[in-house]
Amino acid sequence: MEEETYVDPSPIWDTLNFDLLMKVANNTLFSPFFCMLVPTFFIFQGLGFTHYTVVYSSIYLVLVCTFWAVKWLSYLQYNKTSFLYAPVPLEWSDQIVVVTGGASGVGELLANTLAVKSVTVVVLDVKPIQSQNYNINYYKCDVSKWEEVEAVSKKIIEEIGQPTILVNNAGVVQGKLLLDLSPEDVQQTFNVNTLAHFWTLKAFLPGMLEKKKGHIVTVSSMLGAHGIAQMTDYCASKAALISLHRSLRSELDKRYNCPKIRTTLVLPGQIHTPMFSTVTPSNQFFFPTLHPIEVVKPIIQALDNTLGETIYLPFYANFAPWLTVLPHWVADIGTWFSGADLSMKDFVKVSGRREDEGPVPERSEPTPVVATNGHAKLE
Amino acid sequence: MEEETYVDPSPIWDTLNFDLLMKVANNTLFSPFFCMLVPTFFIFQGLGFTHYTVVYSSIYLVLVCTFWAVKWLSYLQYNKTSFLYAPVPLEWSDQIVVVTGGASGVGELLANTLAVKSVTVVVLDVKPIQSQNYNINYYKCDVSKWEEVEAVSKKIIEEIGQPTILVNNAGVVQGKLLLDLSPEDVQQTFNVNTLAHFWTLKAFLPGMLEKKKGHIVTVSSMLGAHGIAQMTDYCASKAALISLHRSLRSELDKRYNCPKIRTTLVLPGQIHTPMFSTVTPSNQFFFPTLHPIEVVKPIIQALDNTLGETIYLPFYANFAPWLTVLPHWVADIGTWFSGADLSMKDFVKVSGRREDEGPVPERSEPTPVVATNGHAKLE
Repeated sequence: MEEETYVDPSPIWDTLNFDLLMKVANNTLFSPFFCMLVPTFFIFQGLGFTHYTVVYSSIYLVLVCTFWAVKWLSYLQYNKTSFLYAPVPLEWSDQIVVVTGGASGVGELLANTLAVKSVTVVVLDVKPIQSQNYNINYYKCDVSKWEEVEAVSKKIIEEIGQPTILVNNAGVVQGKLLLDLSPEDVQQTFNVNTLAHFWTLKAFLPGMLEKKKGHIVTVSSMLGAHGIAQMTDYCASKAALISLHRSLRSELDKRYNCPKIRTTLVLPGQIHTPMFSTVTPSNQFFFPTLHPIEVVKPIIQALDNTLGETIYLPFYANFAPWLTVLPHWVADIGTWFSGADLSMKDFVKVSGRREDEGPVPERSEPTPVVATNGHAKLE
Repeated sequence: MEEETYVDPSPIWDTLNFDLLMKVANNTLFSPFFCMLVPTFFIFQGLGFTHYTVVYSSIYLVLVCTFWAVKWLSYLQYNKTSFLYAPVPLEWSDQIVVVTGGASGVGELLANTLAVKSVTVVVLDVKPIQSQNYNINYYKCDVSKWEEVEAVSKKIIEEIGQPTILVNNAGVVQGKLLLDLSPEDVQQTFNVNTLAHFWTLKAFLPGMLEKKKGHIVTVSSMLGAHGIAQMTDYCASKAALISLHRSLRSELDKRYNCPKIRTTLVLPGQIHTPMFSTVTPSNQFFFPTLHPIEVVKPIIQALDNTLGETIYLPFYANFAPWLTVLPHWVADIGTWFSGADLSMKDFVKVSGRREDEGPVPERSEPTPVVATNGHAKLE
């Protein structure tokens, strides 16, 4: 894409966005330790315990502590683990990690990062991964087809071993209005984005059930919790994954009795990958476009903790689930503010094109790649 | 199913459930008119305006009024309509209503009820509807297949006319644990429950867009907002519908400029239909099993109002979307309390069996049909 003009971000405002402010706030305003300092300071200054400054700052401290305590205990309960002992850190060298859609975008970066940690990585994709790393094993596989997944999974188990971690990451975007979607488009979206998860689980979950251990990472999307124009099929397919993540947890806990098989759900906003390269970016302060590394880091963190969780990225994604309980006009305002309903207007499908679609059409005018907070330009 | 033993419900507790209590509360405790009586009464009794009884009951009145006002205004905003004039009531005799899966359960009752209102009803199903009503036009159509929907829709438009209302109701349940689901099962679930909506929209939405009028009813499920064991595929396919309903609204409002094409989402709990006849019912006080008529009534009401809305049934379904924003243990407690994760243990697929599945297997012991609040036993 040589015709792209790169708008250099201003170095000062470069990384300043809502997420950074929240990070600062988490270490100050919302930090129990920091909040504890306030009443302590005033007490040592000689104000009595009943002085209103001490009382109000103490109430605030209790609220902050309660918030984090509930969050922490919920996290432990979700993983059916105790707060008395820390989880055993993951033996990375023993792990065999399957990454679907591992030849580009988030999957590629995850595969390469794990390979550097000397983890055995298995990449399933329709096109090969460009990597010199000998820890990466590429298997050509269209994960949307059960026959291929079945055949390839048998080969993997025989040649490499039973996978211990499964990262279901493959996805495709059509970016068309409902009536412009061809039947093949709809089929492809659901086959790649949703059914592939069922196929890989059918293939690799039995091995995890045997050892009663493992980790399943479901890469859905913030849009799975909402629903915007020109993304009917994509949003629906990603919503299905959020539900699958939940019912899978129920089955593992209550029916397969394997609470130690962890499940992590990833709900990212727009990511700066080839797949989304032609999406009009929203306001970068409130709705920053993610760099793949920002998504890969918390996934590896979750795997390292051997504890499942839900990863919302960037910060505004935390609000997405609230759109289902709040009145519709709240979602309307949010969608209007983010410009999400218009963001797909200039979308061109670059990634995951089928044979019947032909090559990527030439774009009439150069699309500027908007400031991506100092991250490298897409090649 | 002659082997079923019918447990006669106690006539007194027959219809007493949480939904009835809520109905009573809505007309008393939560009714603005009723709440207004309290401070008024005390003021006329001679208590001053500043007496604490009057103050507190007035604050309560304001809260109740605010709740209903927000709800009402949200409803109007959702439909982009004004509160200054009531919507024009629907001319039922001009309507052509397409009901998918209209040969049994909710679809069948809806088709028959509408036909009695002398509406032209078009039923799409794989098996014919048993009805003497001449207003019902049956077209054999497997809505999960685009080719069939395309062909049949052309025939319908030619022979009957352009449908004005589309009720996407067809659904199928496999009721198997994730690893027991065959690839055909998963395919069927998504094809019938989710993709069929895309196909019928592709077929019938263009006609509505031309007239800038119409109503699309999406029958999802309360389980689409949650996710329980032995229902991974079903929950996921229904979650996709909730998302589709939302993005469809966005497209109609912002991209097709047709806010008058209404969209209604139905999120029912367990319904007493053949499809769910082998599901173990939950506590009938808190989680009453719905009779199809309880689902059909609000759908017809929404069509009659010519205003879209989200229909939660029974009352507990209102809480389902909250499970996505509350910590996971809340959902865990709710699921445990409802017994939902175990409710599918004795499930037998009765409805929507494919050829490769053969006939319905004989059940080893009679399953008692539990008290259904005085509604007729399933034949």
